[in-house]
Amino acid sequence: MDERTLITTFFARPQDRRADIILGIGDDAALLRPEPGFALVVATDSIAEGTHFPAGIPAAAVGHRSLAVNLSDVAAMSAEPRWFSLALSLPGADPAWVGGFATGLFSLADRHGVVLIGGDTVRGPLGATVTVLGQVKPDRAVRRTGARPGDGIWVTGNPGDAVAGRLLLAEANEGPDAAALRQRFLYPEPRVQEGRALAGIASAMLDVSDGLADDLGKLLAASGVGAELDAEVLPLSAELQRLQTARAVACALTGGDDYELCFTLRPADAGRLREVSAHWSVPVTRIGTVVPGSGARWRLHGQPLAVSDSTYRHF
Amino acid sequence: MDERTLITTFFARPQDRRADIILGIGDDAALLRPEPGFALVVATDSIAEGTHFPAGIPAAAVGHRSLAVNLSDVAAMSAEPRWFSLALSLPGADPAWVGGFATGLFSLADRHGVVLIGGDTVRGPLGATVTVLGQVKPDRAVRRTGARPGDGIWVTGNPGDAVAGRLLLAEANEGPDAAALRQRFLYPEPRVQEGRALAGIASAMLDVSDGLADDLGKLLAASGVGAELDAEVLPLSAELQRLQTARAVACALTGGDDYELCFTLRPADAGRLREVSAHWSVPVTRIGTVVPGSGARWRLHGQPLAVSDSTYRHF
Repeated sequence: MDERTLITTFFARPQDRRADIILGIGDDAALLRPEPGFALVVATDSIAEGTHFPAGIPAAAVGHRSLAVNLSDVAAMSAEPRWFSLALSLPGADPAWVGGFATGLFSLADRHGVVLIGGDTVRGPLGATVTVLGQVKPDRAVRRTGARPGDGIWVTGNPGDAVAGRLLLAEANEGPDAAALRQRFLYPEPRVQEGRALAGIASAMLDVSDGLADDLGKLLAASGVGAELDAEVLPLSAELQRLQTARAVACALTGGDDYELCFTLRPADAGRLREVSAHWSVPVTRIGTVVPGSGARWRLHGQPLAVSDSTYRHF
Repeated sequence: MDERTLITTFFARPQDRRADIILGIGDDAALLRPEPGFALVVATDSIAEGTHFPAGIPAAAVGHRSLAVNLSDVAAMSAEPRWFSLALSLPGADPAWVGGFATGLFSLADRHGVVLIGGDTVRGPLGATVTVLGQVKPDRAVRRTGARPGDGIWVTGNPGDAVAGRLLLAEANEGPDAAALRQRFLYPEPRVQEGRALAGIASAMLDVSDGLADDLGKLLAASGVGAELDAEVLPLSAELQRLQTARAVACALTGGDDYELCFTLRPADAGRLREVSAHWSVPVTRIGTVVPGSGARWRLHGQPLAVSDSTYRHF
C-alpha cells in the first residue's frame, strides 16, 4: 500500500470539517483559523517502540499513546487542544495494523474534539511524532514557574499504576487487578478537562511522564523552591497495593508513564479546587507543601525516604 | 550527554525571544501569539536517513534539510513561516554531530526569521520531524486546486540539479560542476520569498519534492485539469547539462528533492509575475499550459515524451 492510499484510507476523514479549519489534509500545508484573543499552544512529543512502549502492544494502544502524551502536555498548560499533525514511522504498510492505530488515535481525538490536519509517513522503526495545537487565554496558562512557599502540592489520579501495568504486560496474570493496571499503561487518559479546570487556580503545573519525583523536581527547580512531601499520603490504587505491595510507593514515585497532572495551589484556593474537582472522575490528592530552598524532601511515616534518581535519560 | 543537557547546550537560545512568543522552550508546551486576521499555516514533514538523505552527509546538511523541506511546504502556500518544533531521533548523543546539526538548522532558521519553540529527542535511527507554523491572509493562500485551462505552468530554479547532486555524493569528481550540484542536494533553498511574492498571483502552487512530473500531476489532479508541456524549455542548469548530458531531462522530470515551486498563472497575470520576480535570485520559467481534461502530455522537440512513473513511494 503506497503512502497516498494509506493516508486516504485511514487518515483523511470527511467528517473532520470544522469552522476553525480552512483547509485540512491534502495540500502542502493546513490552514487553520485560531480564535482571536487566545494564545496558541504547541506541544510536540515522540514515541518510539522499545523506548516509550514495548513491541507487540495493540496497534490501537500505539495510536492512542501518540496523541495522549501530547494532549497531556497541553492539559498541563490548562489549554484546550484543537488540532494535531502526525508523523508516522512504519516498518511496513500492514493495513490491519495501520487501521488499528487509526482506530485508537481517532477514538481519543474524537473524545477531545481534536482534528488531524496533516502530517507525513516514512518507512522506519515503529514510532510517531505528534504536534498538538491548542489555545488558552494568555493570562490563564499555568506554567511550571509559579510555585511559592506555602502552596500545597497536588496530584491527580493514581501514580504508579502505569509502570505496574507495563511490568505486567510480560506476565501471565489474568486477574482483574492486572487487567486494570495494564489498561492504565496501554491507554493513559490525558487529564484535559482537569487541566483546563485548573486554569487560574493552580499556581504551577506539569504532567507526570517521567515519574512523580523526577517531574516534581523539574517544577520545583523552575519555580526556585523546595518541597516537603509525605509518601504515605500518595494516592496508591487498590490494584497497585495488591499487586506491588512492597514496591507500590516506588512505582508511584519513580515509575513514569502516568500522564497525571502535578500542580501547586495557594492555600486560599483550596475551596476553588474543591469546587472545580467535585465532578471529576479522577481523585485529586494533596501530597505535600512547597517550602523555601530547593529540592524535594520525601518522608515515609516520619522517616526520610531516599528517592533514587530515576531521571528518564534517552542517551 | 542526557536529553536536558543536549537541549540546553544546542537548542535553547536566549536570543530567540520575540513579541510573538509568549513562552518558548522549557515548559510543557509553547505559547505563541498569532497575528489577528491571519490564517495559521501548519506543515509537518519527516526526513529519515537512508530514505530522504544518504548516510554520511554533513550533520549541518541534515539540520538544514529537516527545516528546509517544511519551509518549502509553507512557501508553497504563499505563507510567512514564523515558528517551528523539532522532534529529533538520534542513534547516540555525539555532541559534535548534534552541534553540526544545530548549526545547519539555525543558520537556515535565522535567515527566514523562524524560531524553534519546542520539541523532543528520542533514541533511534537518525531522522527528524519538523512542524513549521506560519501565517497568511486566508484569501491569499495559494492552493493546489486553482489551475484553469489556459493558465501557464511555471517552475522556479533548475529542477534536476538536486538528484544529480545526490548521485554525485558517491563519486570522486572534484570539479566545480560536481561541487555545485552536490551543494544543491545538500542545502536545498526553500523558495520562501518567492512563494510569498506569488500570493494573489499564482492560481495554484505546490513545491517540487518528489519530482516535477509527479508533483505537477498532483496539482493537475487537484485542480481537475490536464496540461501540455515542452521538455525542451525546462530550465536545465549548465552544470546538469554538462554532467548528465543524456539524462538531464530525466533528472529534471523525475529526480525529486528539488524543493522548487511549480505554479500556474492566468495569462493576464504574466505582467504581475514579471514585476514580482524581477529581483529574485532564482530563474522562473514557463514550461507549459493547462488544458481541459486530465494528466500531463510532455513533448520533446514536438515528439511525445514518455515520463516513467517515478512516484515516490515509501512502502
